[in-house]
Amino acid sequence: MIKVGIVGGTGYTGVELLRILSQHPHARITAITSRKEAGLPVADMFPSLRGRVDLAFTTPDEAKLHECDVVFFATPHGVAMAQARELLAAGVKIIDLAADFRLKDTAEFEKWYGMPHACPDILAEAVYGLPELNREAIRKARVIGNPGCYPTSVQLGFAPLLRTPGLVDAGHLIANCASGVSGAGRKAEVHTLLAEASDNFKAYGVKGHRHGPEINQQLRAIAGGDGSVHCVFVPHLIPAIRGIHSTLYARLTPQGQQTDLQKLYEDAYRGEPFVDVMPAGSAPETRSVRASNVVRIAVHRPAADLAMVLVVEDNLTKGASGQAVQCMNLMFGLEETAGLNFVPVLP
Amino acid sequence: MIKVGIVGGTGYTGVELLRILSQHPHARITAITSRKEAGLPVADMFPSLRGRVDLAFTTPDEAKLHECDVVFFATPHGVAMAQARELLAAGVKIIDLAADFRLKDTAEFEKWYGMPHACPDILAEAVYGLPELNREAIRKARVIGNPGCYPTSVQLGFAPLLRTPGLVDAGHLIANCASGVSGAGRKAEVHTLLAEASDNFKAYGVKGHRHGPEINQQLRAIAGGDGSVHCVFVPHLIPAIRGIHSTLYARLTPQGQQTDLQKLYEDAYRGEPFVDVMPAGSAPETRSVRASNVVRIAVHRPAADLAMVLVVEDNLTKGASGQAVQCMNLMFGLEETAGLNFVPVLP
Amino acid sequence: MIKVGIVGGTGYTGVELLRILSQHPHARITAITSRKEAGLPVADMFPSLRGRVDLAFTTPDEAKLHECDVVFFATPHGVAMAQARELLAAGVKIIDLAADFRLKDTAEFEKWYGMPHACPDILAEAVYGLPELNREAIRKARVIGNPGCYPTSVQLGFAPLLRTPGLVDAGHLIANCASGVSGAGRKAEVHTLLAEASDNFKAYGVKGHRHGPEINQQLRAIAGGDGSVHCVFVPHLIPAIRGIHSTLYARLTPQGQQTDLQKLYEDAYRGEPFVDVMPAGSAPETRSVRASNVVRIAVHRPAADLAMVLVVEDNLTKGASGQAVQCMNLMFGLEETAGLNFVPVLP
Amino acid sequence: MIKVGIVGGTGYTGVELLRILSQHPHARITAITSRKEAGLPVADMFPSLRGRVDLAFTTPDEAKLHECDVVFFATPHGVAMAQARELLAAGVKIIDLAADFRLKDTAEFEKWYGMPHACPDILAEAVYGLPELNREAIRKARVIGNPGCYPTSVQLGFAPLLRTPGLVDAGHLIANCASGVSGAGRKAEVHTLLAEASDNFKAYGVKGHRHGPEINQQLRAIAGGDGSVHCVFVPHLIPAIRGIHSTLYARLTPQGQQTDLQKLYEDAYRGEPFVDVMPAGSAPETRSVRASNVVRIAVHRPAADLAMVLVVEDNLTKGASGQAVQCMNLMFGLEETAGLNFVPVLP
Repeated sequence: MIKVGIVGGTGYTGVELLRILSQHPHARITAITSRKEAGLPVADMFPSLRGRVDLAFTTPDEAKLHECDVVFFATPHGVAMAQARELLAAGVKIIDLAADFRLKDTAEFEKWYGMPHACPDILAEAVYGLPELNREAIRKARVIGNPGCYPTSVQLGFAPLLRTPGLVDAGHLIANCASGVSGAGRKAEVHTLLAEASDNFKAYGVKGHRHGPEINQQLRAIAGGDGSVHCVFVPHLIPAIRGIHSTLYARLTPQGQQTDLQKLYEDAYRGEPFVDVMPAGSAPETRSVRASNVVRIAVHRPAADLAMVLVVEDNLTKGASGQAVQCMNLMFGLEETAGLNFVPVLP
Repeated sequence: MIKVGIVGGTGYTGVELLRILSQHPHARITAITSRKEAGLPVADMFPSLRGRVDLAFTTPDEAKLHECDVVFFATPHGVAMAQARELLAAGVKIIDLAADFRLKDTAEFEKWYGMPHACPDILAEAVYGLPELNREAIRKARVIGNPGCYPTSVQLGFAPLLRTPGLVDAGHLIANCASGVSGAGRKAEVHTLLAEASDNFKAYGVKGHRHGPEINQQLRAIAGGDGSVHCVFVPHLIPAIRGIHSTLYARLTPQGQQTDLQKLYEDAYRGEPFVDVMPAGSAPETRSVRASNVVRIAVHRPAADLAMVLVVEDNLTKGASGQAVQCMNLMFGLEETAGLNFVPVLP
Repeated sequence: MIKVGIVGGTGYTGVELLRILSQHPHARITAITSRKEAGLPVADMFPSLRGRVDLAFTTPDEAKLHECDVVFFATPHGVAMAQARELLAAGVKIIDLAADFRLKDTAEFEKWYGMPHACPDILAEAVYGLPELNREAIRKARVIGNPGCYPTSVQLGFAPLLRTPGLVDAGHLIANCASGVSGAGRKAEVHTLLAEASDNFKAYGVKGHRHGPEINQQLRAIAGGDGSVHCVFVPHLIPAIRGIHSTLYARLTPQGQQTDLQKLYEDAYRGEPFVDVMPAGSAPETRSVRASNVVRIAVHRPAADLAMVLVVEDNLTKGASGQAVQCMNLMFGLEETAGLNFVPVLP
Repeated sequence: MIKVGIVGGTGYTGVELLRILSQHPHARITAITSRKEAGLPVADMFPSLRGRVDLAFTTPDEAKLHECDVVFFATPHGVAMAQARELLAAGVKIIDLAADFRLKDTAEFEKWYGMPHACPDILAEAVYGLPELNREAIRKARVIGNPGCYPTSVQLGFAPLLRTPGLVDAGHLIANCASGVSGAGRKAEVHTLLAEASDNFKAYGVKGHRHGPEINQQLRAIAGGDGSVHCVFVPHLIPAIRGIHSTLYARLTPQGQQTDLQKLYEDAYRGEPFVDVMPAGSAPETRSVRASNVVRIAVHRPAADLAMVLVVEDNLTKGASGQAVQCMNLMFGLEETAGLNFVPVLP
């Protein structure tokens, strides 16, 4: 059994990690930390875990994280990078669900997250944890920067169009995305109260969102390092708990217009356990992946020279904690789908 | 035009007062205070009021509340009683939407609200602002304790059964109630986040809720001062923005079993502009009163010796701000329905 | 008082017409027809109207629609065009909330609505009822084709960019829109059940939606008849009752990039009673216009050569019944805002 | 592997059976019937099952149900009883999720379900499938009447109070219950549309609900056949997809008032894998059991002589398909929790 520590288990990615790992056949959670809630049984905060998770939150000091095989950081930005060096030195692998190891450019990191990066050398070593695009590197990684929820869907949606050069006008991509409210985390804030966010819809982050630079960094990498790739990213808030829906637009070049897009996508994701390319003409629903690690994709051509890609994922599972466990499975030589094969909950 | 001041306009009862009063034919809002938001245009916080309310929040000092004809307190408990004496001295009438002037027993007030009462003499003078039960006293009042949202529905639902002595076992009443989340106010709290409260249902306040003593004080008064009246009050949280639904149970005495309950209720509320006794067999829906000042009531007899009363109201309108304006209308000799005649919004 | 008839009052645009018209100072509803529900009091179907609308549904034969001043059709497509000639002959004005008088090209109408047009001559005469773009023609009209809910928001959003030639690449517009479920009407269908549509998000109509040709017909007209204008329209379903949110994208030409877009929009809608151009940087919310006739617009420039316009409206009010009453006001020489000045309901 | 057939797989109990059984370690689904959808791949109707259930719907004739070990009926009332005799003769066990084998009194069945019972002898043999109260009989059963969703929660909630005679006034029980909309099934009906049922709350079935006689039959059996037991059952509709919340009231006798209710409940359910008696003072939430087979119960005493029991379950899992699989496990000698141990999905 893999000994797992979780730093910061009081948020939504934390409780989703607990849901998944408490059912995982090859993992055992040995510690969950929360300075604020130290001493509180985890199941008192999350009654859904009564009888399933018997641990209490502990302080980081008591948690003996250096004895773990792997530590997940389900914390705000800045926590993982402060503890990474010591854990690595103790031979512990790290999977950070926050942004500390996503942006390779430390200046970009500082700009968007408001703090200098604490360990650029570890950042340089860290692997971006999107298995469908980065599987071999993840297997060998000691440190994973687990992708953001939006970037996961945008990358998986655009990747087939960008990998072959010359199919689309890659400098003018649009990612019109929408997320359930759990994406904002389990923080007490007025704008995500039910009485504010229910029966409502709006764009947000219209002056710039942190996932924008992450998306662009990664799309450029997918396009073979083409620095001219540019994607406008516009997030919206769905009055729902879970789910991300991305509607992606790319102008097709003449070459792109002659490409069989359906085949392109089916070929790209053939054999992937968690990516489902739907039949032509489909409109995937977020609920079709609820509480599962599956991404569903449909590709359309609403005008002769326009590709439209629809992508759905569960923001807390494939968009966060499920993907993190998928990385763990790869890092420890397990079956990639171990503990992740639950069927979506519908209705 | 009546000059109106609002103290504490940043919560849901505040914005509902603004919605109603900005359309009122005989009222003009002259000041809205918020220490925290002083200087901010009201419409910047509530874009629904853009073009309709041109005021900015001011500090209490700048608000010149003593020049108003009436001041509404849409504040936390304790604010109105601190300012009441000075305003009354200046000839200003007061309508408090919080609890400062509801509980007549200062020991009860202190027990449930955690502070001593600042002005027991004004409390003694204050009138409980439920027009259907207290209309004449309201007309003459200088100070109104505007009823709580739950108590309004429970009182209007039980009143016909309690006014005639001997119809029910008044010592064993049950009020099984449910409220939309806006009843918890516009405070940043985890348990009312959309991701927590949506797709969910629970009881709350199971160890005792502040509206319990208010309900019992008033039901005893309705029953002519019968101290043996007792109602168990159990609130639940509906995953909805607005609306209160009360399911009331009273055991019928033999005399009660011989009473035509439908007629009893129709007689009790004949001519009331805001109380709609529905036909026998009805099940009122909260949405049928959404954003309106109407209460709908249906009375049933699910067993030979049991009366069940179903009551719906909008917690922010008839359960708070609409009722407060109804009181204002009475206090200033206006048509009772002035500015309150909007049709419910359905769907 | 204007005598108003409503054909087909059992759907959501019907009950919204009733909500508005029952509060209108200059209109009196004289008949509401429904073959299926003839004899049923309207308030039995919609308890929100108890005490406010005392009519019962009648058969079309009994309704004496020819004695009305104006008849609203809140019916499925095809009904209005079957009755239009006779009503016009009797001097009755017509406002159709369905699609019979929207598409000027009868072949397009037949293609999208599956029936030949019954009266091309009346269609030729009919005026597209979007007051902000067509006010003078509406004043003189006998027949109004009331715009679709999506087209209203898309047109008002793109109009300032299209009226001045050469600002945008008008052949490659994108309208990424989302609507509350009431837009699908009050028909019993599985896909709009709460258990299907709640906690969910999806695109729909991905193979083509009826509002697409209407949008393109109108955008071409706005652009002065430029046949090269083309907009890809992608609707999505919000798990909410009301509200449309449109996120519009247009590539800016060099000329467009030198234009002050905020000023362009403010100038375009200065003085419009129902269009609110929000300050730069805003993200309008659908709830900020809930149950009101207001449209709010914000214009952004997320990349140097891209304009993004955010538009919100209530699909049942400004997107349907409110707009229809706005047209009625114009047609009868009333104040344009008569009966439409209600403040949005928030929260 | 147990060969499983499902009759009527197009509703919510059907898709929930598919979710559970497709992950069950000892069951294999061999046929799913639907006359209407014969030929359609199951995953085309429920995309959540893409890649997990490869069957298509078949006609009952093609399904070879007589070769199954067990057949689940996820059908409307009346279907199971029409096919039971033939399947039993072929040695197939039957679990009916509808009401054909719940009410032991055929006159009651006919009264509430509008059809005569087709096989009273099989009804007499059938076992009521509530394992916590009926485990041994289920192990030996050939035919299971799987309990209704409401009755499951009401029985588990009241059972400890009724098993010991003399604790409560058993002739005046009240079950004030609320259910998510999926309880109404996947039928196209106006009243369960999102635009009708969302942001709303109401009682329903106020003139009598089919689950009332089932509840009373069972509570009498639990009370040792005491015919004076009577429970008033009042269901309400929660604007949520899943979840049942029951608030149960029973007047305590003097003997009952001297009983330690918390201990009574803990003793009653000690060792039960799917019943969680929460600590004193708890208020269970429906989301704490979402998509799981767990029931959580809290017992309170809001007045000296009143017991209040709060019960939550997932209406589609423990209230239907999960419970059915729990019965199957017992009938086939499997671990009772096999395939049912999934952790609730929260948030």
